[in-house]
Amino acid sequence: MHRVVVVGAGFAGLSAARALIGEQVEVTIVDQRNFHTFQPLLYEVATAGLESGDVAYPIRVIFGKADNVAFRMATVTGIDWEHREVALAGTHPLPFDSIIMASGATAKFFGIPGASDHSFPLYTLTDARRLRDHILRRLEDVDAHPEGAEAQGGLTFVVVGGGPTGVEVAGALAELLDVAVKHDGFRFDRGVGRIVLVDALDRLLTPFRESAADYAARTLTDRGVELRLGHLVKSVTADAVVLDDGTTIATRTVVWAGGVTAEHTVAGEIDVATGVNGRVVVRPDLTVEGHEGVYAVGDAAAVLWGPDDDRVCPQVAQVAIQSGSHAARQILARLDGKDTRPFHYKDKGIMATIGRRAAITQFRSGRVVRGTFGWLAWLALHLVYLVGFRNKIVVFINWSWRYLSWGSGPRIIVSEETAPGLEAAPDDQPDDQPDDEAAAPPG
Amino acid sequence: MHRVVVVGAGFAGLSAARALIGEQVEVTIVDQRNFHTFQPLLYEVATAGLESGDVAYPIRVIFGKADNVAFRMATVTGIDWEHREVALAGTHPLPFDSIIMASGATAKFFGIPGASDHSFPLYTLTDARRLRDHILRRLEDVDAHPEGAEAQGGLTFVVVGGGPTGVEVAGALAELLDVAVKHDGFRFDRGVGRIVLVDALDRLLTPFRESAADYAARTLTDRGVELRLGHLVKSVTADAVVLDDGTTIATRTVVWAGGVTAEHTVAGEIDVATGVNGRVVVRPDLTVEGHEGVYAVGDAAAVLWGPDDDRVCPQVAQVAIQSGSHAARQILARLDGKDTRPFHYKDKGIMATIGRRAAITQFRSGRVVRGTFGWLAWLALHLVYLVGFRNKIVVFINWSWRYLSWGSGPRIIVSEETAPGLEAAPDDQPDDQPDDEAAAPPG
Repeated sequence: MHRVVVVGAGFAGLSAARALIGEQVEVTIVDQRNFHTFQPLLYEVATAGLESGDVAYPIRVIFGKADNVAFRMATVTGIDWEHREVALAGTHPLPFDSIIMASGATAKFFGIPGASDHSFPLYTLTDARRLRDHILRRLEDVDAHPEGAEAQGGLTFVVVGGGPTGVEVAGALAELLDVAVKHDGFRFDRGVGRIVLVDALDRLLTPFRESAADYAARTLTDRGVELRLGHLVKSVTADAVVLDDGTTIATRTVVWAGGVTAEHTVAGEIDVATGVNGRVVVRPDLTVEGHEGVYAVGDAAAVLWGPDDDRVCPQVAQVAIQSGSHAARQILARLDGKDTRPFHYKDKGIMATIGRRAAITQFRSGRVVRGTFGWLAWLALHLVYLVGFRNKIVVFINWSWRYLSWGSGPRIIVSEETAPGLEAAPDDQPDDQPDDEAAAPPG
Repeated sequence: MHRVVVVGAGFAGLSAARALIGEQVEVTIVDQRNFHTFQPLLYEVATAGLESGDVAYPIRVIFGKADNVAFRMATVTGIDWEHREVALAGTHPLPFDSIIMASGATAKFFGIPGASDHSFPLYTLTDARRLRDHILRRLEDVDAHPEGAEAQGGLTFVVVGGGPTGVEVAGALAELLDVAVKHDGFRFDRGVGRIVLVDALDRLLTPFRESAADYAARTLTDRGVELRLGHLVKSVTADAVVLDDGTTIATRTVVWAGGVTAEHTVAGEIDVATGVNGRVVVRPDLTVEGHEGVYAVGDAAAVLWGPDDDRVCPQVAQVAIQSGSHAARQILARLDGKDTRPFHYKDKGIMATIGRRAAITQFRSGRVVRGTFGWLAWLALHLVYLVGFRNKIVVFINWSWRYLSWGSGPRIIVSEETAPGLEAAPDDQPDDQPDDEAAAPPG
């Protein structure tokens, strides 16, 4: 039987493998983790609104009843094109007839000095949990040592990047600080906590209409977030961020929401052509030049878009979902002796949330719904897309509970470093991503 | 105002601090973690039935509205009796007028060679998460490398200790293996998975009546658990357990449910008399000899019991809860100029669960309810005692969901070590507990 290896179990890989359930192919989906991560809600895990398990779903549970889909938990180290095998670290290679590369991306630091060492990206569940533990430790640390905390930025959170992730994190941090002071018995003054959102562009949420961006800016400002738009980050250290106008913001917490790149993923290790941000160059049908039966999808691929296919799709969930299943269908078409078809991204609109009763939904037509209605639409859509019925129920309860009472939420520090050293120094992070040489600004 | 420091936020410390809410005392509760752990359900976290957050509750949320109770996240390093201050690692000491020592216990390894290095205790949330990740990695590893797995004990789980925790873990492991094979698409044969329960005594569940113990033994055997009763563990290595009759059981997973001790806790660091298992010797009113205003409670204390106060209370939740609030009331009585009163443990009965539709509830009268009724009673009681309404709802849903569908459950591996090295070698565990010199048997 025709063997398909799907590399990665994010939105793209999952969508591809699902489209192959019950078909006349033998599928193996490979991921270094045994769960799918619902990335759009990672910021809620990072700000202690949801539990890790609420946004993670075991891959085996999804495919447990699909006889033709197997799962392998392993790290892909390369592809042996000659023997047509996917090389895995520490275990047998996987022979393939077709491959769907859905290996995703990692945070992009633009070569800014110190950024990869001293900031917290937010792309994986591990990232989110590490950031949550760090934020909660900052609160405990400033509660125990209020002296000098304000000057040293002990409770200053700098968010780099004014796209949806940056806006969501900034909004959720504002709510977390409010809750901490009102409900958790922290003794410091709410005013000690600062949230600063930095972006190189002079507006937020670039893909949205300007009215939506203005609404987001106004709402964030109302909720106490300081906006530093039109500023580049020049460097990040363990205790400060320096902007291009020389401003130094004392902080122990830099959240990196400045964009993603495929440069440091396995896509860069296999002999394929890559374009901007290391994304694999694909033909209109998502096949990869120079290799037979190889497709690239999702964040890993430079998927073309627009009436003239002259734009590259944004690295968002909808592109991943649609391109993943498209690649799967082309494999089946080829097996049926049919020609492949070009991929056309269907823009279903975009969404961003700022917090309680404040979100923006922009439809494909350009129409914008915001405020409470936008927020309810955001809640509903995210529940619908969340994998697993149990997860949907639990997240719904968590949200309702939080909305009604504020009184709960998984504000627990689970990582190993218990006191002393409440502080998980950013230096402790594994530095497996070299700084980029490129010096393009985030945003 | 009279300053009370409560050391530890387990059942005993929480119960003590709660009894002091709104009273004319200034309370600080200290714990190295920022959450209370509902220990009776840790085995469910370890076997991927519940999420970490379901059994953890932020301490600050409990006391957030209590103006006279503060929380400090810190590790207690000792007590300065002369200046009457509790020393904390990395932060200011806490002055006190009274102390309630509720510092708990840790796993007891009885000096068995290799036990502390190569087995998984189950006393903290970190223990439970580490064990869960290890078990799930074992499943993935054997799925990827079925060759030789049976002979090497790749899926053999040895549980040491036939008390409630050991019985619960063994029963839950049997269910986890069933689910893995039936629903998660693992390709190995269910028969490759072995669960072996070892205890030095020739029966299970010592505090229960023999009929209850027989029922537990029968039910576990029916569910595929092998019992090795009347056997001492002689040594544990990275890949085997050796029993006193020379039997060597090849295994990569030894769960240590062999009892607890206060010997390696802060109770042993402060200048107080300790008895069996390092538990602080207390007077009938729970005060500690030789110091003014010092109480010891819960697992940390050798609390006396029985009509003649000649027995030491078991290290269970009910003793902790009752002794904690008793100590708090004695502090208030002394402040009111009244005499302290002796503590009397009210035995409310004991419970143990074996799994789905099989649990044992033994009332104080000695009456035993078992099977489905025992199980429903067990479920209800644990929901009632679980801290936090949100946690109750979520655990209820998780349980109902699992019971009705089996299809879900947080079977996700959250720890850092991703593949390769699916195996978190037991050697990687921090070895902060020296082996005991004593050679008493577990059980």
